[in-house]
Amino acid sequence: MQRYAHILDLVREKNPLVHQITNYVTVNDCANITLCFGASPVMSHSPEDVIDMIVHAGVLVLNIGTLDEKQIENMIFAGNKAKMLGIPIVLDPVGAGATTYRTQTAGRFMNELPISVVKGNAGEIGTLAGVSATVRGVDSGTLAGNPKEITRALAKEYECTVVMSGKEDIISDGKRVIGVSNGVPMMGRISGTGCMASAVCGACASVSEPIDGCITAMTALGIAGEEAAKTAKGPGSFKPAFFDAVASLTSEQFIKFGRITEYQ
Amino acid sequence: MQRYAHILDLVREKNPLVHQITNYVTVNDCANITLCFGASPVMSHSPEDVIDMIVHAGVLVLNIGTLDEKQIENMIFAGNKAKMLGIPIVLDPVGAGATTYRTQTAGRFMNELPISVVKGNAGEIGTLAGVSATVRGVDSGTLAGNPKEITRALAKEYECTVVMSGKEDIISDGKRVIGVSNGVPMMGRISGTGCMASAVCGACASVSEPIDGCITAMTALGIAGEEAAKTAKGPGSFKPAFFDAVASLTSEQFIKFGRITEYQ
Amino acid sequence: MQRYAHILDLVREKNPLVHQITNYVTVNDCANITLCFGASPVMSHSPEDVIDMIVHAGVLVLNIGTLDEKQIENMIFAGNKAKMLGIPIVLDPVGAGATTYRTQTAGRFMNELPISVVKGNAGEIGTLAGVSATVRGVDSGTLAGNPKEITRALAKEYECTVVMSGKEDIISDGKRVIGVSNGVPMMGRISGTGCMASAVCGACASVSEPIDGCITAMTALGIAGEEAAKTAKGPGSFKPAFFDAVASLTSEQFIKFGRITEYQ
Repeated sequence: MQRYAHILDLVREKNPLVHQITNYVTVNDCANITLCFGASPVMSHSPEDVIDMIVHAGVLVLNIGTLDEKQIENMIFAGNKAKMLGIPIVLDPVGAGATTYRTQTAGRFMNELPISVVKGNAGEIGTLAGVSATVRGVDSGTLAGNPKEITRALAKEYECTVVMSGKEDIISDGKRVIGVSNGVPMMGRISGTGCMASAVCGACASVSEPIDGCITAMTALGIAGEEAAKTAKGPGSFKPAFFDAVASLTSEQFIKFGRITEYQ
Repeated sequence: MQRYAHILDLVREKNPLVHQITNYVTVNDCANITLCFGASPVMSHSPEDVIDMIVHAGVLVLNIGTLDEKQIENMIFAGNKAKMLGIPIVLDPVGAGATTYRTQTAGRFMNELPISVVKGNAGEIGTLAGVSATVRGVDSGTLAGNPKEITRALAKEYECTVVMSGKEDIISDGKRVIGVSNGVPMMGRISGTGCMASAVCGACASVSEPIDGCITAMTALGIAGEEAAKTAKGPGSFKPAFFDAVASLTSEQFIKFGRITEYQ
Repeated sequence: MQRYAHILDLVREKNPLVHQITNYVTVNDCANITLCFGASPVMSHSPEDVIDMIVHAGVLVLNIGTLDEKQIENMIFAGNKAKMLGIPIVLDPVGAGATTYRTQTAGRFMNELPISVVKGNAGEIGTLAGVSATVRGVDSGTLAGNPKEITRALAKEYECTVVMSGKEDIISDGKRVIGVSNGVPMMGRISGTGCMASAVCGACASVSEPIDGCITAMTALGIAGEEAAKTAKGPGSFKPAFFDAVASLTSEQFIKFGRITEYQ
């Protein structure tokens, strides 16, 4: 527990630059959660700009929430630069399974780029794992199979860390399988929770082993969600309260409230 | 009244997918209001993605708030797919009347696509109706003529539902003319109220007759605005309170506080 | 003091249209702060739209926070129209110094367009002034040299008003050098404070001498930040409180709490 809590402090101390190419819906939330978590967000997409910006980045986060051809090109460019520089890459395959375009693009990124972390909901991770999954729009779908096995198999196949978010988040690097059961249903009632989680997984993965970083990220956000839900009167007031809770979360709180299960 | 309140429940029960191609200013607000209202937002613009995504949509919402050539192409593509699939289309002609480009594009969409609902302020609707109207930027302009007649005439001409937002919203399908007088001035002091109304009109129109859906949407948002204004200290705190009020609005409250006038 | 406070009232009275071509991260914040300040925001980027829209604008604000080739073209087009029409231009050179692309683009705009106001942090302004500065991402860097001298020299060179934001904002038109020491550290913990300041500098510069407008803008936002920090529990609750404070700021409060130093 201490080991994960320490990553929380480490992010604040090192203040890594989290380079994000993301969707235009939740981009502001991603910037703010990164700041609240103690890291520095930078959004930069055009190759002319990426080429200098990524040099200083601790991590690259690719989120395909609002995809088009130009963005794919930009992501591949940034991904290849990250690869050259040894910078970890986090992929959020938003809507994989909902459209062929998203499924294929996510698959392409998994195969062409050295993805360190892929974080999605059950439908998205199931789709990447080749398991029958139903996805409608960008909401989570349902999954045919055991989440822990699917997560571990995908992680093993791609030698990366896989985060399948849900009531209990399942996190695996192909060997270890961890469950995080923090969080509240209200987190699903605002737009951007998943995208924010990817940004924060990125911040943590830039200062630690990816799997440990993801455990820290998902636990921290879950605890903050629980805290925010105590005072929120609805999704509108939940969001600022959630940002406040993330910004003020201490490693002591993390240790006290984190619900992390090491399955194997 | 019951009939409109029922649509509120129906949206929450059916949770329709609201496919939106909208502006980059208020897109996050549109996503969140859709969620708060009990529907599911999805933003998807590129033809490669739209082609699969729209199949699951209950409605397509086109908002021209930040227009360019690429977006027009994308909207026409999505609009034609919606047409083929029989999915209703909502148009928010943001800034029609302010620039020739917006006026012509909105006119083109009205003529080329089977628009079910067009929702704009007095200046925008007046412009589409060919009535002398002044529009500056994306704010409402003033109108030469009777709002009820203009709204009805435009609805009749295009065989659609027209919503002219204002102190009293006027809604017509060419036959019926309805006024909704819920709402507060504070709603005009935040960016995105109009865009959010279009998203919610879409959510409602996907589960009911378009005119009934629009009456429900405008009334519900107006009541929520009144509720939020009670505690808001300004536009900043109004917005989260507004989201909260939308999310918690019951059909009982709707029936109690709705101010709907059937003019003819 | 009265003279600056008067500009606050003047913006609310004249309600200038603030035409903004800005980044996709903080664009919603820029729209809302413009409204809160009593001006009207309009975001319009494509030449087809800009050509009619800018005619009604009181000012054009260019913010290079998320730059690409298409946006540069659009900004140059809008800038040249503003030039022709005698509309003041505000430049926010976000991230100049962090990438060659941003540095060169900001420099190009400074040279090709009649920039009235350039507002940036120490690293960005230092970079434009040719002073050794370190910039990482879009955060402020450190500066080799005297902020007042650098600011004045840059203002003199380009015959414009320069705002170097910081703990004490330094503002100069090449002759006068003014310091504004309002503000709180919390303003740096949310995304978009700098972008919002540029929008508000634009609103004020459209109804007054640019330097006076910028002094008013920076002071007003600083006071509002101080006010908001009194009740905020973190960055999340700070933001709505900040919008509220901006919207309710009176000229009396401005006079009472403004900390403006005329250095020369």
